[in-house]
Amino acid sequence: MPEAERLAARRRLSVAQGHLQSIVRMLDEPEVYCVDVLRQIKAVQGALDGAGNVVLRGHLQAHVATAGERGDTAEIVEELMQALKYR
Amino acid sequence: MPEAERLAARRRLSVAQGHLQSIVRMLDEPEVYCVDVLRQIKAVQGALDGAGNVVLRGHLQAHVATAGERGDTAEIVEELMQALKYR
Amino acid sequence: MPEAERLAARRRLSVAQGHLQSIVRMLDEPEVYCVDVLRQIKAVQGALDGAGNVVLRGHLQAHVATAGERGDTAEIVEELMQALKYR
Amino acid sequence: MPEAERLAARRRLSVAQGHLQSIVRMLDEPEVYCVDVLRQIKAVQGALDGAGNVVLRGHLQAHVATAGERGDTAEIVEELMQALKYR
Repeated sequence: MPEAERLAARRRLSVAQGHLQSIVRMLDEPEVYCVDVLRQIKAVQGALDGAGNVVLRGHLQAHVATAGERGDTAEIVEELMQALKYR
Repeated sequence: MPEAERLAARRRLSVAQGHLQSIVRMLDEPEVYCVDVLRQIKAVQGALDGAGNVVLRGHLQAHVATAGERGDTAEIVEELMQALKYR
Repeated sequence: MPEAERLAARRRLSVAQGHLQSIVRMLDEPEVYCVDVLRQIKAVQGALDGAGNVVLRGHLQAHVATAGERGDTAEIVEELMQALKYR
Repeated sequence: MPEAERLAARRRLSVAQGHLQSIVRMLDEPEVYCVDVLRQIKAVQGALDGAGNVVLRGHLQAHVATAGERGDTAEIVEELMQALKYR
């Protein structure tokens, strides 16, 4: 993975992890309200989408765009299609 | 939030948090491969979907299904539509 | 389904259908560019999300919020969770 | 767009269009049930995902994997990231 994307993704996922930790603590409270938790989960999912996009962009640049020169287009494309399947 | 859903959601999100921590550690490795990270992020997103579904089911049962009797259907429905918007 | 939501959803889906028809015509052109088609498909998916939200809101108001009074909360909630699974 | 993907996407979107037409007809019935419509909309969204994946695979093979040789990697990657944003 390109260095800049690696560090950016790491930073984003660390923040998301802290956020997830705070939701777990919310759920220690018997009176916690469902919709508040739903909103927080959505926010973490948005952060994961953001980190995923950073990694995807790095992959497209470093590995997919160079596949033609390397000659492994079919493998690289199939691998990426599988990874994107669950977006 | 109903007790059973609260504890189930808490358990799921704790597991997801540990998983996210392991991805952050993956990203400490300069040689980490993009698609491996993409797959792991997808897996955590799936876990968050699962936890969100547990919370949503509890909310539908405890708060939405009883709105007619309480008389606050419009507020409860609007609140939930907003929360679902980012699924 | 409540009348207002039924007619609103019908209108939205008719528009989406016309849009889809135009994408099929785009694909008659051998020179059509992939990303243009991707964008148009995304736009139709957004329109379907919109129509789905209209139907969902009507369902929450008319059928879920009244489940407590009818006594069929478990069935109604389970049915909806299944339908929401593929959002 | 590669010929095979173009024809495959066209076929899939024609089927999805017919399916959408049948949902519009469902909504002519005042007694139509919300969850039945929600399910059908989900099915069409799945079909659109399928068509989008066909187009995306063709684009990755024909245009992204050859970007390194052409020298327009940055533009091609940015264009695709925008198109994927709304998956």
